Amino acid sequence: MQVIRDLQDMQDLALAWRGRGETIVLVPTMGYFHQGHLSLMEYGRSRGDHLVVSIFVNPTQFGPQEDLDRYPRDFDRDCSLAREVGVDVIFAPDTTGMYPPGFQTFVTVEEVTRGLCGASRPIHFRGVATVVLKLFNLVQPQVAVFGEKDYQQLVTLQQLVTDLNLPVQVVGRPLVREADGLALSSRNVFLSPAERASALSLSQALFKARDLAANGERSRDRLFTALKPMFTCDPPINLDYLALVDSQTLKEIDTIHGPARLAVAAWVGQTRLIDNILLEVP
Amino acid sequence: MQVIRDLQDMQDLALAWRGRGETIVLVPTMGYFHQGHLSLMEYGRSRGDHLVVSIFVNPTQFGPQEDLDRYPRDFDRDCSLAREVGVDVIFAPDTTGMYPPGFQTFVTVEEVTRGLCGASRPIHFRGVATVVLKLFNLVQPQVAVFGEKDYQQLVTLQQLVTDLNLPVQVVGRPLVREADGLALSSRNVFLSPAERASALSLSQALFKARDLAANGERSRDRLFTALKPMFTCDPPINLDYLALVDSQTLKEIDTIHGPARLAVAAWVGQTRLIDNILLEVP
Repeated sequence: MQVIRDLQDMQDLALAWRGRGETIVLVPTMGYFHQGHLSLMEYGRSRGDHLVVSIFVNPTQFGPQEDLDRYPRDFDRDCSLAREVGVDVIFAPDTTGMYPPGFQTFVTVEEVTRGLCGASRPIHFRGVATVVLKLFNLVQPQVAVFGEKDYQQLVTLQQLVTDLNLPVQVVGRPLVREADGLALSSRNVFLSPAERASALSLSQALFKARDLAANGERSRDRLFTALKPMFTCDPPINLDYLALVDSQTLKEIDTIHGPARLAVAAWVGQTRLIDNILLEVP
Repeated sequence: MQVIRDLQDMQDLALAWRGRGETIVLVPTMGYFHQGHLSLMEYGRSRGDHLVVSIFVNPTQFGPQEDLDRYPRDFDRDCSLAREVGVDVIFAPDTTGMYPPGFQTFVTVEEVTRGLCGASRPIHFRGVATVVLKLFNLVQPQVAVFGEKDYQQLVTLQQLVTDLNLPVQVVGRPLVREADGLALSSRNVFLSPAERASALSLSQALFKARDLAANGERSRDRLFTALKPMFTCDPPINLDYLALVDSQTLKEIDTIHGPARLAVAAWVGQTRLIDNILLEVP
């Protein structure tokens, strides 16, 4: 496994592969791998000749009050884990390489980023779209793999690829949970044991909604009435949003008619967690 | 010469070329070719294996009060001229193909687009950057050729390519003038003979500035004092701006120290014209 830090080296290698008609799979990450990341790499391994995993904690997707500085990092452990999965290249550019002095170009995906996390993190998806487009240009993948954990990010990037005619297939893969249901997240490391117990109510509420929908419940109001009491716990959970949205447009819906997604974001202590689930009414 | 209208056909062909290690040159245009366009194609012909010329009058770079509907078009004549230059592919997508329902992604290059034409055409360069990025993704060029006539556009696209790590070289080529100095523009067709005579004062002022600078004049104030009377003519010229800027940052300067550009935009009747020139103090 090769570790590449220089942007030009990465692009030269990728263009050489492409010039020989070979296929490239990219798994973009911010590092601090858990089983969710590894499942994306395992899937990606099967989709092309060369598997590149990028590790870059992207400052332009963090707001000024957010946790950029304390975002967890462990590069050596990440490299060991990636090597075991059969990754060919870890691409780990530095911040100055990605955003040199004079950098001034941003990509915005306007509609699907308005609600959900976009409402409380106004520059987040602009930063995500910009950095992912840069990574696509540097790594030249035909396939890029993302987790459904960041569901709004996945939809945003699928829209980006469609709108900008990028010859890249953006694949979403199921999120991975702990045995007790907690969605895997690099930020779970910040939770105290008591906070972690409170955080479980997020996935439990989603599971309950999934079961209610599977039993025929289509109404957002009735679903939310059933779920809201589940978020009362100690230490407290402060909901940012609980939203029932169309799976493709991410617009809020009153009633489930087609593919719908229930998404939640909440603060548990100093840590912001997100989770989501597909609701299907038979 | 092939005419391709379908986006997927264009991209499939381009990716097949790239997969065989072949090089592609793109000259993006809005059609209605004059010698300026043809000079870009002649240059482009020498730079790669395949020369693609796109013809697309891009609605997202026109403001609501601008001349999208009356922008001149002559597709058959354009094809004849392109064939004579040795163009391999005319890529002429339609508007619905480029901007299908639900389109919502835009690219902004923030700093170099603030002044000059960006000040009076607020969405113009967002539209230019977005459509050119789409064309790059569809045509996959290693080299893209633009005229210096649209100097701010050229600088914007060079910044776009740098910031987004696109593996494309954006080349600027000198603008082409009529024998009497008028910069070639598809919009010149709108000028009456009297308006055309007034329009000549734009290039004449630029030439005078070039000569003054060549003779040692570095001061914007003294240059502008010498030039301003030249814009008094009948029918009248309404200046949008006359600006002395740094050639790279496009920031206004008081004094010429390095590469400087003098740029002008003016209304002559219903037609908005632009022109620019390099000023060099020995």
